Amino acid sequence: MIFDVLTLFPGMFLGPFDESIINRAKDKRLIDISLHNIRDWAADRHQTADDAPYGGGAGMVMKAEPLAACICAVKAMRPNSTVILTSPQGRRLTHRVASELSEKEGLIIVCGRYEGIDERIRTLYGEDDISLGDFVLSGGEIAAMAIVDAVTRLIPGVLGSSESAETDSFCDGLLEYPHYTRPPEFGGLAVPETLLSGNHELIRKWRRKESLRKTRAVRPDLLNGIELTREDRRMLAEIELEDASAD
Amino acid sequence: MIFDVLTLFPGMFLGPFDESIINRAKDKRLIDISLHNIRDWAADRHQTADDAPYGGGAGMVMKAEPLAACICAVKAMRPNSTVILTSPQGRRLTHRVASELSEKEGLIIVCGRYEGIDERIRTLYGEDDISLGDFVLSGGEIAAMAIVDAVTRLIPGVLGSSESAETDSFCDGLLEYPHYTRPPEFGGLAVPETLLSGNHELIRKWRRKESLRKTRAVRPDLLNGIELTREDRRMLAEIELEDASAD
Repeated sequence: MIFDVLTLFPGMFLGPFDESIINRAKDKRLIDISLHNIRDWAADRHQTADDAPYGGGAGMVMKAEPLAACICAVKAMRPNSTVILTSPQGRRLTHRVASELSEKEGLIIVCGRYEGIDERIRTLYGEDDISLGDFVLSGGEIAAMAIVDAVTRLIPGVLGSSESAETDSFCDGLLEYPHYTRPPEFGGLAVPETLLSGNHELIRKWRRKESLRKTRAVRPDLLNGIELTREDRRMLAEIELEDASAD
Repeated sequence: MIFDVLTLFPGMFLGPFDESIINRAKDKRLIDISLHNIRDWAADRHQTADDAPYGGGAGMVMKAEPLAACICAVKAMRPNSTVILTSPQGRRLTHRVASELSEKEGLIIVCGRYEGIDERIRTLYGEDDISLGDFVLSGGEIAAMAIVDAVTRLIPGVLGSSESAETDSFCDGLLEYPHYTRPPEFGGLAVPETLLSGNHELIRKWRRKESLRKTRAVRPDLLNGIELTREDRRMLAEIELEDASAD
C-alpha cells in the first residue's frame, strides 16, 4: 500500500509515522508513505497556495491550481491510487471504511487547510471524502494520520501474531472486554477471579459477557448491527437481571 | 489551557504541535502542552510498561502502576485538570464535546497502546473517556492530537479575526457551503455567478442555501438537530423541487 499525503505542513508528519506499528510496516515494506508539499506546486515566486474567498468573508481558501498540479503529478506516478479528500462533509471513518480502503493499491490523501479547498478540486479530482467526525480540525493532517494508521493496521502482515486485529473493538461489532495484567490487586481493586482460573471456556464466556455488557452500557446502537447468538442473548438477559437487582 | 499528554511514544508529537494554529497558540501563551513519557514512571530497571493479559490471549496490556504513578504526579501539579482516557468505548468527540472541554482549566490526556490499559486505571482515575469514532488506532496518540487541535481552536483569542470558528462546519449545526477563490474559471468550471456579484444579501442567501443543500445531501441527520428558520424551510423546499426536476 502506497500512501501519498499532500499537505501545506509536511513538518507535522515528522513524528507520527516514525514509531511503533507504522514504522515497522514501513521497515517490512508493507507500506510506503510519501509527503508532498502542495506549496512546491505553486507557480508564482511567493509560492501562494491560498487566496481570499469569492463572495467575501473570513478566512482563506486553498487555490485550485497548485493543488491540481500536485494531485496530477502524484496521480501520474500512481495511476491506480485513489484520491481522498479530508473534510467534515465526508463519509465517516469507521472500521468498515478503513477495511475497504486497506484493499486499495494506494491512497492519495489531500489535507485541506484554512476555510477549505476550492470546490472545483472536489468536483474534478475527489474520488472519496473522509471525515473523522462532527468536529473541526485546523487541517486534514491529523485526519490523514488517523486514516494511515487505521488502514495500515488492517493490511495483512502488519500486525505480528502476538497482536491481533481480530480482538479489537468493532472487529466483531462489539466494544472490547476489559483488560487486566499484573499485579492481581491494585489500588484496592482485584482482578476478576475468572481471569485467574486458567479455565479457557470460563474465560471466553466472561470476556464475551463483559464485551456485551460494555457495549450495552455505552453503545447500545452497536447491538442492532450484529447477529447475536443464542449465548449472546442469554448473556444479555443475565446482564439485564443483574442491573435490575443492583438498582 | 494546559494540556498534559501521557504517552509511551512522545516522539510521535515532534511535528504535530509545531505548526500553524497550535504553534501560534503556544507562542501567545494561550495554551501549554507538556509531554510525559509513561515509561519514566516504571519502577523496574527495564522500565516495563506493559505485561501479558490475565486470562491469556494475544497482545499486551498497559500496566497499572507506571500509569497510576504518572497520572498522580501530573495531577499533583495540576489539581484542577481533568483526566481524559482515549478509547473506542469513550463518548465521541464532537464540536459540542470539544467546546465543553475548551472551558476546562486543563486536560490530562492518557494515550492507551497495545490491547489497552489495565481496567483499574479507568475505574480509579478516568474522569472522561473520548473516542474519535468507530475505528481502531494503534494508540491514543493521534486521538490526543485531534483533541488538542479541536479544543485549542475554540479557546478565545486563538483564531485571529481573519479566521473564524463561527463559519466552520457544525458551528451552526450545518455543513459549510462550498468555497471558491481565483481564478474565476478552472478546469472548465466557473465560479457561481452570485459570488462575483458583490451583492452581500444574495451571497448570504446563496451560501445558506448551499450549506443546507450539502447537509441535506450527505448528512440529513444534522437537519433534525437544529432549529430551521422560515427562510431555511423555504430554501429546503426549493432544493427539493430542483432535485425533482433534475431527475
